[in-house]
Order: sequence, then structure tokens, then C-alpha cells
Amino acid sequence: MISEIGVQTRGQGLYEFTNLFRSEIRLTGDGLVTLFVRHTSCSLLIQENADPDVVRDLKAFFHCLVPPADDPSMHYLRHVAEGPDDMPAHIKAAMLPVSLNVPVRDGQLMLGTWQGLYLFEHRTAPHQRRIAIHFSRDAAAP
Amino acid sequence: MISEIGVQTRGQGLYEFTNLFRSEIRLTGDGLVTLFVRHTSCSLLIQENADPDVVRDLKAFFHCLVPPADDPSMHYLRHVAEGPDDMPAHIKAAMLPVSLNVPVRDGQLMLGTWQGLYLFEHRTAPHQRRIAIHFSRDAAAP
Amino acid sequence: MISEIGVQTRGQGLYEFTNLFRSEIRLTGDGLVTLFVRHTSCSLLIQENADPDVVRDLKAFFHCLVPPADDPSMHYLRHVAEGPDDMPAHIKAAMLPVSLNVPVRDGQLMLGTWQGLYLFEHRTAPHQRRIAIHFSRDAAAP
Repeated sequence: MISEIGVQTRGQGLYEFTNLFRSEIRLTGDGLVTLFVRHTSCSLLIQENADPDVVRDLKAFFHCLVPPADDPSMHYLRHVAEGPDDMPAHIKAAMLPVSLNVPVRDGQLMLGTWQGLYLFEHRTAPHQRRIAIHFSRDAAAP
Repeated sequence: MISEIGVQTRGQGLYEFTNLFRSEIRLTGDGLVTLFVRHTSCSLLIQENADPDVVRDLKAFFHCLVPPADDPSMHYLRHVAEGPDDMPAHIKAAMLPVSLNVPVRDGQLMLGTWQGLYLFEHRTAPHQRRIAIHFSRDAAAP
Repeated sequence: MISEIGVQTRGQGLYEFTNLFRSEIRLTGDGLVTLFVRHTSCSLLIQENADPDVVRDLKAFFHCLVPPADDPSMHYLRHVAEGPDDMPAHIKAAMLPVSLNVPVRDGQLMLGTWQGLYLFEHRTAPHQRRIAIHFSRDAAAP
């Protein structure tokens, strides 16, 4: 079963969509959910959703690791015509997941206690991001 | 089919569980295994299991790339109440896989010659880590 | 359904195999494709395939982030007997995907407009890389 959900972003940062997923995607039985983001300048992430400082620090770390193209340390970049945030966005999209799997038991995502689903936006402008969702339900035990 | 295996860790580093997987998870036919770690401060990894220096060097590299929160270069972190190893653990857990797939043929994981399954522990204290395993067996050819 | 495709590399860099995949792997209906690379010194990647500068810049960034073992900043590495490019290759293979999923609709990979499939070679010598492909076709709706 294939579905698609959309996440609207408003600049760089992590947007949790665990609740959106649960409200839009109906799961039954056991199986496997696969998420796939159809873009090359944002990422999927499963991360702690208890303390908001965690996602703030994640954003800060990756901004330090991959600074904007107009930072002197990034002088060697050539793909700069789409703005100083574009090539760093592709780099972060290479380092962080484009696809993720979560097993499903009795119709529930088997996320750990503190795990939430996030869209990590790497561009500064707002974007409507599309995530393809595949659910493979296991055949009932004989 | 969903199972779960546990890996006991004793501080930061890579713990191979290829043999544990083979002894606990019974695979038959062709299909796909998916592994999912239900935590936000450790990772799954498929890496070389021939020379122990490889996993030692991997641990050393990621320690340099993401030093503890009390390192001056990490002064901007705010999520520090759970210890200097906690936020770096979340960062490494973002950069390294939370889920992995391995195709299965004739009941065997299609790992390459030098590939092994690892749990990469990012916390300094011992932890009991739980890995959810999903196996989807292909329908027999008609 | 399990298949395998080979990608011949000629030194470090990204090799697109989207067209090779489409010509060798026959997909029908809806389902999920999983790719798995059977090596520990190269990676799979889904990235922009419009501007060739993007893949050039990706290669340059990861070369800066993980320099060769004979770079002074990497003095702590011990696994150096297989050449200065070998341990950095394992590190990049840890940071970048060993497995990837792409949902399939009506026999087509659900890649976004600018997404292409790449093999990212981290070694300097030419290699023949093998990618295992699993396709799970959804049962037809009742």
C-alpha cells in the first residue's frame, strides 16, 4: 500500500510529523512501514521528541559541520547559483536519511519510547515536502 | 515476521552481533530483513569485521567529529543535563543508521565477504539495546 | 524477487546508475525496491542529477571531512596497511547509506524530479561493485 503525506516547512529545522502520520496513515496487523522523501535538499530523521533542545542542537551541529556556501571554509563549492543554502542542503541530504523503515506490530509503529518522526528541512525558504509511505502487511500466520 | 534481539553494551564502541543474529533469527527462502534500533543514542552499522582496528578507528573518528559537550568546540549545545556524552550521542544517532535492510537468499543474509552487523553504542554507561527485526519472505515463484 | 547489478568504478566519485537500473530491473505493479551494496568502502546515494557540479561538490566535501590517512589530522588512524584511502573509505561507508528503499507505483520508481541513484566510490583504485536489489510487489487489491 502506497500513500503520500505532505509536510510544510518554514526554514531550516526539524519538523515532527509523528502525529500527522498516525492521523493520515491507517495501519493494521504486523508489517513494515517505509518512508521515502522525494527531494534532495531535506531529510527524514528519527530522533528524540522529549526535549526541544535536542532538535535545536541537531540543527546547530549540522549548520556548523556544513556551513553556508558563503562561509570561507566552503570556498571550493561550485554549485552556488541557487543560493548559499542550496549546496549545503544537498550535502546534509547525503549524510542524513532519504528513506527509513519502522516495523509495525498490531497496527502500531514500533518506535521506542522517545522516538519521533521528523522532516529535517535544509533550505531557508518555505517548502512543501512530499513523503512517500509504503506499508507492507505481513500475511496472517497459518 | 517480527522479532527482537537485545545487545548489551559496556560503553562507547561497536558491538558485532552477526553471530547472535544468525543464532536467534531463523530465515528461510528469499526475502528481506529489516533491522530497526528503538533508541536515539546508538546506531546500527554494517562494517568490516576482519581487522579490529577498523571499528576502533571508526569510534575514534566519530569521537573527533562529535566531541563531548564539555569540549570547547561544542559550547553552543543546550541539551547537556543528561551528561556530556548525551547530546553527541543524539548527533551520532542522526548521522548513522537507525534502520538497515539486508536481502536474504536461500535463508542466508546477502552480506558481502567482509560485512558484519554492528550496534554502535554512543553512550558511556552500559545499556541494554533492543533491535526490532522484520523478515518479509518472498512468495514462492509460481 | 532478488537481482544483482554491477557498477564499474574508476576512482573516487559518484557514478549514476538510474538508467542501468531501469534497463536491467523489470518492475510491475506497486511495491518497494530495496538496494543493498555488498561492500564496506563504497556507498549508495540518492542525489540531484541535474547539475554535475552537485556530485563534484559532494565528493569534495566528504574528501575534506574525511581526508586521506596520511593527512596530519588523521594521525590517530591505525588501519593504514591497505593504503591511505582505505580507512577513510570505511568511515564514509559508515556515514553514507549501505541500503536504500524506493517505493514503486505502476512499475515506476517513485523518485522525485531531480533524484537519481548513485554508487559513491570511496577507493582510488577501480572496483567492480555489486548491488543486491530486492523487489517486493504488493498483492493486488482485493
